[in-house]
Amino acid sequence: MIKGIFLGGHQGQWRVESMQTQRGEPLPAVSHLHSADTTENWQSAGFAWCLQGVTSSVRYTTQTEQAFLQQHQPPLHRPEATRAALIPIRKSAAWWDLAQDERRAIFEEQSHHIALGTTAFPAVARRLFHARDLGEPFDFLTWFEYAPEHVTLFEELVGALRATREWQYVEREIDIRLHFLG
Amino acid sequence: MIKGIFLGGHQGQWRVESMQTQRGEPLPAVSHLHSADTTENWQSAGFAWCLQGVTSSVRYTTQTEQAFLQQHQPPLHRPEATRAALIPIRKSAAWWDLAQDERRAIFEEQSHHIALGTTAFPAVARRLFHARDLGEPFDFLTWFEYAPEHVTLFEELVGALRATREWQYVEREIDIRLHFLG
Repeated sequence: MIKGIFLGGHQGQWRVESMQTQRGEPLPAVSHLHSADTTENWQSAGFAWCLQGVTSSVRYTTQTEQAFLQQHQPPLHRPEATRAALIPIRKSAAWWDLAQDERRAIFEEQSHHIALGTTAFPAVARRLFHARDLGEPFDFLTWFEYAPEHVTLFEELVGALRATREWQYVEREIDIRLHFLG
Repeated sequence: MIKGIFLGGHQGQWRVESMQTQRGEPLPAVSHLHSADTTENWQSAGFAWCLQGVTSSVRYTTQTEQAFLQQHQPPLHRPEATRAALIPIRKSAAWWDLAQDERRAIFEEQSHHIALGTTAFPAVARRLFHARDLGEPFDFLTWFEYAPEHVTLFEELVGALRATREWQYVEREIDIRLHFLG
């Protein structure tokens, strides 16, 4: 289980290119994002916000889908993948009150969430962090990495996801685009 | 989402009748369990350990099962339910590496976890707290409440669960039995 800690402020490995509030309350604007190892002292270090999550276990992925993903999904940290996006989202109480089979049906059979992600392989790498059980302001933090020539492909991917039935349950979403500084 | 905080020590609303390590590393022995509202200062208050979790969302329950449970499951805090059990468990990495449909099949189609629980209705009330994403030493804390005359029924329930295929993935389990002091 990998922990993801993202600090927004005026220093970090990533320069913030844009922050768009898709739905709900915005996050304070920052110029840089720091991918950190610890949440300790983030406030005294001058950061404006701290978001965290854990990779946890898969919630909807079947054995067949998991085998396909493990074989085909691109890795993070490719040297050419100098663009990234951090997209924190929160879903509604109506979503979380649904039974497991209802959420699975909306997620994949109706919204094709996993299938859509694979259409951007191998250009777009992705890691999902779960945050809801941690009492965080967002339920999920999704981290994407891609090369500059795949910006349009990435735009199509997030556009397709936002048009799904699943996204009707998203009540807060911030889309943060980033350039790698090293 | 309800938070469950359980402090083991020498004071609390529940007297510890027994603590049995079913598998894995034991927890330090205590005489009392305190169901708390906060994790703050539990060490300076003299408690030996603190376990916490959140009710979160259902992971395996289908719509049909959820409707049945909502209609038939007994509530907590019944005045006659003066016996309780807190059973923290941790499952193996092999369990968490399984895909969602594989875990569901072992959990219910093969092990009848939900169905077994309903055989103890309305005698045994239950609340599940998820702890894995919180970085806790256990993945789940399950809390059960029942009247003294249903001790045998409860024993049969936990015995049946421990005999399932699902339980082969349990690598740590402590069974803590409690009497209500008020």
